[in-house]
Amino acid sequence: LIIYGRNPVREALRGPRTVGTIWATPGAIRSEAWLPGSARATPAPEIEQRCASGAHQGVCAEVTAYRYAPPEALLELPSPLIVALDQVQDPQNLGSICRTAECAGAAGVVIPERRSAEVTAAVCKASAGAVEHLRIARVRNLSDFLAAAKAAGAWCYGAAADAGQPYTAVDLSGPVVLVLGSEGRGLRPRVAAGCDALIGLPIRGRIESLGVSAAAAVVIYAAQAARERSAR
Amino acid sequence: LIIYGRNPVREALRGPRTVGTIWATPGAIRSEAWLPGSARATPAPEIEQRCASGAHQGVCAEVTAYRYAPPEALLELPSPLIVALDQVQDPQNLGSICRTAECAGAAGVVIPERRSAEVTAAVCKASAGAVEHLRIARVRNLSDFLAAAKAAGAWCYGAAADAGQPYTAVDLSGPVVLVLGSEGRGLRPRVAAGCDALIGLPIRGRIESLGVSAAAAVVIYAAQAARERSAR
Repeated sequence: LIIYGRNPVREALRGPRTVGTIWATPGAIRSEAWLPGSARATPAPEIEQRCASGAHQGVCAEVTAYRYAPPEALLELPSPLIVALDQVQDPQNLGSICRTAECAGAAGVVIPERRSAEVTAAVCKASAGAVEHLRIARVRNLSDFLAAAKAAGAWCYGAAADAGQPYTAVDLSGPVVLVLGSEGRGLRPRVAAGCDALIGLPIRGRIESLGVSAAAAVVIYAAQAARERSAR
Repeated sequence: LIIYGRNPVREALRGPRTVGTIWATPGAIRSEAWLPGSARATPAPEIEQRCASGAHQGVCAEVTAYRYAPPEALLELPSPLIVALDQVQDPQNLGSICRTAECAGAAGVVIPERRSAEVTAAVCKASAGAVEHLRIARVRNLSDFLAAAKAAGAWCYGAAADAGQPYTAVDLSGPVVLVLGSEGRGLRPRVAAGCDALIGLPIRGRIESLGVSAAAAVVIYAAQAARERSAR
């Protein structure tokens, strides 16, 4: 398995995956002090061929498979902030949301096994390597996960453009699951029905809805701010 | 000038630009009820050739040039929420931030003339067409714009990963300019020095910083929430 890009390879070296051979251009070897001495000086076209992407920034590496977390592990953490994604299929969006979740100190991200982007090299790149330090769990059925989360004491909030209650009106400081829907279609009815409440992001313009990664950033950081307030 | 994608063309039809010929695949003509009867049924490969992008979703259109707003127009609005971008070069990020700014009801976005992405067809696409309804101003010098904004009574807040004061500690309910730096390098020192204060987004993970479009979403919606609170 090959990952590519400077942040992804650097974070893989700091994370739990085993990193094998690293290939880097002479330019990257000069500028990236974190690259180990074992990195093999390699011309850019060969790196591009190895990782099958033009976005390699002069670095790619062989790594072991991404290790998903068991979903229960997220629920067992104290007062977890969990982000659940209902069929987000764009690797850019999944990567961006994982980066935001990791930065905010979230307990982890839950994705369904089917009809969802998974943690590919493109997602590693879009997350700036954040996936290496983040618990990501795959579940067969997202509604069942929400039921388990509720049984474990978490509140499940579904983000929906047309929800009557704004996200600022709910208490996000305890154990919560923030559920975000796919690009374009939003939450599936069964997933929305499995939430304790729907929360809206106020739209004051003419465009109908925020992008899913922007919406995720808003609610994830609102939950982080609520936690920091209640900890004071 | 050719723009492409379903949202971009639909929003151009609702916005101030003049839209000329529209080309659409037979499939898009069937599914997109908003397409005018004058749309020309066109095979997908011809659409791809016309717009030079594979992301056309079966629709492209000829439009007049994007009309930038004069920067003063943003400052003249009552209690404006303005987003200023210091050399954001990735069209995806510029588009995503414009979409968020438009959804939040911001007065507009300010970008420098040089070393910044401008409003290309790719930015229209990444913004889901939001640029058509948003004031975007280009300025020769961002520091001069911040000085003018301060003279007009606005507070300029620069977002910086390492700022001591979190964004939640400042009052974002009045006239404000939220200044965001480029991917990777952040705010230039002269731009940071031109801000009234720097505000940080708390990082609780191992990754050093949020993506610029996620950071923008957090601070833009924090400002929107502060406005809605103070209006009550």
